[in-house]
Amino acid sequence: MGRIICAGLGPGDPDLISVRADRALRGARQVAFFRKPGRQGQARRIVEGILPAGIPEHAMEYPITTEVPFDSPAYNDALARFYDDWADRLAALAAADDLVVLCEGDPFFYGSFMHLYVRLQGRVETEVIPGITGMSGCWTATGSPITWGDDVLTVLAGTLPQAELERRMAMSDAIVVMKTGRNLPRIRAALQAAGRLDDAWLIERGTMPDQRLARLRDVDAADCPYFAIVMVHGHGRRPEIRCPE
Amino acid sequence: MGRIICAGLGPGDPDLISVRADRALRGARQVAFFRKPGRQGQARRIVEGILPAGIPEHAMEYPITTEVPFDSPAYNDALARFYDDWADRLAALAAADDLVVLCEGDPFFYGSFMHLYVRLQGRVETEVIPGITGMSGCWTATGSPITWGDDVLTVLAGTLPQAELERRMAMSDAIVVMKTGRNLPRIRAALQAAGRLDDAWLIERGTMPDQRLARLRDVDAADCPYFAIVMVHGHGRRPEIRCPE
Repeated sequence: MGRIICAGLGPGDPDLISVRADRALRGARQVAFFRKPGRQGQARRIVEGILPAGIPEHAMEYPITTEVPFDSPAYNDALARFYDDWADRLAALAAADDLVVLCEGDPFFYGSFMHLYVRLQGRVETEVIPGITGMSGCWTATGSPITWGDDVLTVLAGTLPQAELERRMAMSDAIVVMKTGRNLPRIRAALQAAGRLDDAWLIERGTMPDQRLARLRDVDAADCPYFAIVMVHGHGRRPEIRCPE
Repeated sequence: MGRIICAGLGPGDPDLISVRADRALRGARQVAFFRKPGRQGQARRIVEGILPAGIPEHAMEYPITTEVPFDSPAYNDALARFYDDWADRLAALAAADDLVVLCEGDPFFYGSFMHLYVRLQGRVETEVIPGITGMSGCWTATGSPITWGDDVLTVLAGTLPQAELERRMAMSDAIVVMKTGRNLPRIRAALQAAGRLDDAWLIERGTMPDQRLARLRDVDAADCPYFAIVMVHGHGRRPEIRCPE
């Protein structure tokens, strides 16, 4: 009976994978990873050249390719069947040999693997290797600390209603918004209303070779990159250690 | 003219250091790290056996050993002089040879290095290598995802006033509290008032050999470990993907 090892891959640069995850990848006997149909998939791309050549690869292709409202019953039903199915398949595969599941960022921080993880409990021995979060990669790319002193950091999903985004942005020192893409106009409007737009950054493909950093206010309204994070840095609650201008 | 490389060391397990930071550590020509006077220091302990033997080591000992109120002018003055002094010394050391600064967790997430970093801007070329945050190590240790779906995560410093802690805890799906130690009684009272105490975990030295996980409600009131994080997991805003009980 084999094990399932979920390897957190970090923000995108293969050099930012942990020593433990790197070892698991180099010794992998078979791997599985999520991707959208017809794409190579970000997780698989990160480990190109690290995985042994020729091992079995299992692409878990999401049943849908476009974003639908987060409260759509159809979306949730399709996803639930997809995770049920793949949990069964991974359990069967792991019965024969150890299996490594690739996960961008940190698996237990908004990661898709957790939907398999809860379904595999009690069926297969599972190890989760944490990773550097995408947001850590992005704030490091900006060259400025995200939090100082007693700053409060709020992490938000861009799918939340605009009024809720605005209210929470206005009361936070530091802000990270995940799930941007087509939610970007609403995120931008919320930041504007909260008086934080001028301090907001858009970081696309942070730590990757084609990384892009921009002030969100300078990004064209029609430009909604999918793999991006929006953030506002804190400045430290102690006046003595404020970030110099 | 050498460079300063700040290596994020992750949550404590040396195996969770990134491949890039591990390489920088193994090739280090000299290192600097923070510690309390008379202690080995957590950062230095993590890299024991990884650093080359016999290289120069510069222990940056904090001027104070006990916690004082975060708004104390004396605390801030002493710290500012300490950082000024070490920024000068590191700049001089790096002029002779590359220098690696050790940082627990992720340097730009509540890390002490940032106080040197801002003072070194324009004086020394500096690279920051992100790391797995202490909180990622801790939630992975609990075996449960911290955030699902559209959960809002709030990261708080335990030094904040109790009323503010309570208000923010009550309105967050997932909660992480840093800087616990002697603030633990206030953190506990705020969680209780916010109706979240029964869901709160205390994780001490997460990912380290002597790691300790406990329900906060079961921890003795006099027990205030220093190197610990308090957290409450989110359950996902979509009912379909709630964590099974």
